[in-house]
Amino acid sequence: MPNSYHGKILRVNLTNNEITVEEPSEVVYRRYLGGSALSLYFLLRDLKPGVDPLGPENILVFMTSVINGTSISGANRFSVAAKSPLTGGFGEAEAGGWWAPELKAAGFDGIIIEGQSEEPVYLWVHDGQAELRDASHYWGKLSGEVQDGLEEELGDKRIRVLQTGVAGENLVLYAAIVNQLRHFNGRSGLGAVMGSKRLKAIVVRGKQRIQATEKDGAREVLQWFKDNYDRDNDMMHLQGTSRIVTGLDASGILPTRNFRDGSFEHAEGISGQLMYDTILTRQGTCYACSVACKREVDVPELGVTSKYGGPEYETIAANGSLCGVGDLKKVAKANQLLAQYVIDSISAGVSIAFAMECYEHGLLTKEDTGGLELTFGNDEALLRLIEMIGRREGIGNLLADGVKRAAERIGKGAEKFAMHVKGQELPMHEPRGKRSLAIAYSTSPTGADHMEAPHDIFYEGFHPEGHPLGPLGLIEPVDMLDLGPKKVKAYYYCQMAWSLYNSVGMCDFVGVPIGSLALDKLVEHVNAATGWDTSLWELIKVGERANTMARIFNYREGFTREDDTLPDRLFEPLENGALQGEKIDRDELAEALRLYYQFAGWDPDTGEPTEAKLIELDLDWLVE
Amino acid sequence: MPNSYHGKILRVNLTNNEITVEEPSEVVYRRYLGGSALSLYFLLRDLKPGVDPLGPENILVFMTSVINGTSISGANRFSVAAKSPLTGGFGEAEAGGWWAPELKAAGFDGIIIEGQSEEPVYLWVHDGQAELRDASHYWGKLSGEVQDGLEEELGDKRIRVLQTGVAGENLVLYAAIVNQLRHFNGRSGLGAVMGSKRLKAIVVRGKQRIQATEKDGAREVLQWFKDNYDRDNDMMHLQGTSRIVTGLDASGILPTRNFRDGSFEHAEGISGQLMYDTILTRQGTCYACSVACKREVDVPELGVTSKYGGPEYETIAANGSLCGVGDLKKVAKANQLLAQYVIDSISAGVSIAFAMECYEHGLLTKEDTGGLELTFGNDEALLRLIEMIGRREGIGNLLADGVKRAAERIGKGAEKFAMHVKGQELPMHEPRGKRSLAIAYSTSPTGADHMEAPHDIFYEGFHPEGHPLGPLGLIEPVDMLDLGPKKVKAYYYCQMAWSLYNSVGMCDFVGVPIGSLALDKLVEHVNAATGWDTSLWELIKVGERANTMARIFNYREGFTREDDTLPDRLFEPLENGALQGEKIDRDELAEALRLYYQFAGWDPDTGEPTEAKLIELDLDWLVE
Repeated sequence: MPNSYHGKILRVNLTNNEITVEEPSEVVYRRYLGGSALSLYFLLRDLKPGVDPLGPENILVFMTSVINGTSISGANRFSVAAKSPLTGGFGEAEAGGWWAPELKAAGFDGIIIEGQSEEPVYLWVHDGQAELRDASHYWGKLSGEVQDGLEEELGDKRIRVLQTGVAGENLVLYAAIVNQLRHFNGRSGLGAVMGSKRLKAIVVRGKQRIQATEKDGAREVLQWFKDNYDRDNDMMHLQGTSRIVTGLDASGILPTRNFRDGSFEHAEGISGQLMYDTILTRQGTCYACSVACKREVDVPELGVTSKYGGPEYETIAANGSLCGVGDLKKVAKANQLLAQYVIDSISAGVSIAFAMECYEHGLLTKEDTGGLELTFGNDEALLRLIEMIGRREGIGNLLADGVKRAAERIGKGAEKFAMHVKGQELPMHEPRGKRSLAIAYSTSPTGADHMEAPHDIFYEGFHPEGHPLGPLGLIEPVDMLDLGPKKVKAYYYCQMAWSLYNSVGMCDFVGVPIGSLALDKLVEHVNAATGWDTSLWELIKVGERANTMARIFNYREGFTREDDTLPDRLFEPLENGALQGEKIDRDELAEALRLYYQFAGWDPDTGEPTEAKLIELDLDWLVE
Repeated sequence: MPNSYHGKILRVNLTNNEITVEEPSEVVYRRYLGGSALSLYFLLRDLKPGVDPLGPENILVFMTSVINGTSISGANRFSVAAKSPLTGGFGEAEAGGWWAPELKAAGFDGIIIEGQSEEPVYLWVHDGQAELRDASHYWGKLSGEVQDGLEEELGDKRIRVLQTGVAGENLVLYAAIVNQLRHFNGRSGLGAVMGSKRLKAIVVRGKQRIQATEKDGAREVLQWFKDNYDRDNDMMHLQGTSRIVTGLDASGILPTRNFRDGSFEHAEGISGQLMYDTILTRQGTCYACSVACKREVDVPELGVTSKYGGPEYETIAANGSLCGVGDLKKVAKANQLLAQYVIDSISAGVSIAFAMECYEHGLLTKEDTGGLELTFGNDEALLRLIEMIGRREGIGNLLADGVKRAAERIGKGAEKFAMHVKGQELPMHEPRGKRSLAIAYSTSPTGADHMEAPHDIFYEGFHPEGHPLGPLGLIEPVDMLDLGPKKVKAYYYCQMAWSLYNSVGMCDFVGVPIGSLALDKLVEHVNAATGWDTSLWELIKVGERANTMARIFNYREGFTREDDTLPDRLFEPLENGALQGEKIDRDELAEALRLYYQFAGWDPDTGEPTEAKLIELDLDWLVE
């Protein structure tokens, strides 16, 4: 193969302050690309099974990709990965922004953190150099203060700051990691892993210019957007992810009151249109992005400023409809608190909604809540609880461990209100209405995760440029409520593609406007950036490879097929809305999973990857 | 999906002379493309299992493809398929030339022949019309006479004639089909099926212009060849397939004396260089081909003329080294006889070599041979036997049924000299030296077949434009003698690609000069010709689909995993040459096959396709 991609991985041991550099072979880059797959390569190679996720033996990987930082729209995402303290299995989360391209400009494709520091430190990476510096003065500070402090301390406004927050310091099991105050590696509790290592932040700054090995491929994609993309009329740009609130509500799949309902009477009050008409000040964006789907909002009367961006759909639903809260400004305030404490907004909202339902049923009382009236719709309680979770104060200490552990501790049947899979709280997408999510949530290696594959609605929607997954042969629509073989196949194919996106560091939102060109262009991107002659076949197999590696990670940690399940509530009917009465059928799901395992090359009974599949995916080094 | 490809299939029932037209849906075209896959679609749909291959119930399919006939180099190949009289399983063979593009220009993508005519007929297809005409006057005639007669009868030198020969009329079980006297659908005995139906020929002529839906894609490929391909210095053009004779001999893998030896002392005497220096008059070619690898030879003293082209490598080795014959001119004469009688030159050569070895061991005597001295190297006996086989005269009647049946009839241990798999004779490539062929010959649905996948040498050779299969991720070399997991994977991936070539009607020889661009360009070809947005993923899956369908065809006919084997000789050491002493290990092959089945989504114990794989490949209509 053309021999043209080289990169460096920074290894930092916080126990002994040793900093070294690893240079993976080009074959490793080509097989794993970056992000999720390449993180798994290092985790499976270097992490012993069975370690304490919050102990010094856990490894925390930050990984860009071979295309990250090139001038290709959307190629700015990176993964953070470790053993998750929330699930005890594979923990991984992606974020966009500017941090990852800046890390590459500083000379590194990724950072592997090992060990545990005695005192708080931050890592300062600049122009091929790396050093650990004291961070005691940032410990206990809200994210904005840390960002400002570091900019001042280093005397450079153009540094890019990635940090864990007060929640991470306090080992909140769903603490997030944030870069530039608004781009979150939200899920899996990776902020707690960072906190456990007493690594407050990773600050990067680089002047090395990253460019595609062959410029033409990248240029063509930019030209495509210039010629074809009408940003000013694209709802994804205008309203961002929040655009879907009212549509989901009308379809009966807006998670409401802890997933009891599918429709929310105040949906208009937390809608993207309302945000656009009232509190939105600007559409934010990420590095080199043509779409610019991010939000910036101001709510002066609540002290909400655009410094922290603005709420995404997940945050709106989890802290809005799911908690019965119908006031967008309060949701924006919740968003800011979550950003300040650096907490996963999904798990936080679900934990609070769980507490509200427990309170409604008398499983929690004012005695437990310190006097808070935890009824659905109590927005003041919502805001208070976010801070209590971040600080592990009072009932916040219970909820900071997530709904699975909280329910176990409450007992008295609280488990039936605990909306999680493998310990991770459900995202704001309703499997009873988008049935492929029943497979996604059941099987996702990180626990319930909505970024495993595009949701069903995606398979059917109108795509003026052709269906983005049409090129894989998904040329016939599958009904949203279908959970039969055709849905399983559509899901499996989509998942491989999405798993690829998570490994190659590409934002799937950028792919949508390009339609069926997206996958084609992605191949061109990779070849342009590396000089390789790869193909869609090889790339999709990277997605499949990452998925199988994550499965192995979990099986090494003791997971079994029995962990691929859903919360009981999803097997019961939706209580209101357009899909009232719809539920998942247990037998149908079991059949779907058997088929899914077989598509994946896993044993249909045990769900374990077969030796043949490992060999096919060049994972023979994982055959035990 | 863009809705732009439409085509017609001609259905001709010879029992009742009914001619109808079927128009498959675009989904059928996209899933099956043409050639092997689309033929299997019709066979599995319309052919009852268990029928007599030479009876009226067998169905004979002639199938071009969605890109056939466009101005894309190499897109001229078509498949003929039926239940094989030689193996009793899936019978299929491809040919290039001009016949298929002409059929498309006449308005049809394929022809399905059913039933059996009482009298010899030929089918005359021209400009959207089709008629059956009397062919009694061509019955019993050599192919050249039939070609000339039809050109005269129809008053058009530009007709394209496909015919079965005297061998097909006589139901020689490995009778071939030929178009324009030199392009052969050689294997599987399809000429006998045609003969059994008393269909002497299919003559086509069309004026409809075929062009790519989107011209640009095709134009770019043509431009690539114009800019990059140095035909006058490419050995594939200069010497054609015959170029490999001496190289294989030096490597110890030139099949010699019925596969006893791997080296032939007269290799130079039958070499491509010698042909080039002496009897070659011109490099022949196929429709719209940039490579032009065909041969035309003249040997006036033996009556050999370029009318019948010239011998390919398979013909040279099967009728040269395999029979111990070292005189190129005699081999050219054999080639012409095989073309005149329309006989598969591989099975013929292997049957004659078998007879020679039986003779050497006294299992056949002069009494059996009608006085012929059947010693290795007796070129006169070789030439005589070809005619006797074509006419089923004397011992030719025994050998006309292939080595498997001949050995059964001879008894006395003759089976150990019968080089066949599933009843089809081995091609001229040595599995003991190119180990992936051990998998190929064992598992090929048509019996031993060298066109299942590129041979091992291909995985390692120098490719200035990059490895043609590098884009699939085959980026590390695998040793020719390896038969372990990495070889099985390389073979499986290559096989899917080759199966695609056989379905899309593309010549793999055209792909070689393009190197790693070949698969990329093929996707562009298909999209240019159809207006679709397909991808390499979807296309490779067509290859996998065809392979699985062929497997199902055979299992319906009663084949089992036990039929995936090799002749005993291959488990014994090569007796001379550079690889003297090398043999296939039975246990290693068994392990390789288990792994191969698993890669294919087949049961590792029984080799049967799993339901999950059928569903993934949209073959749920074949789930019983």
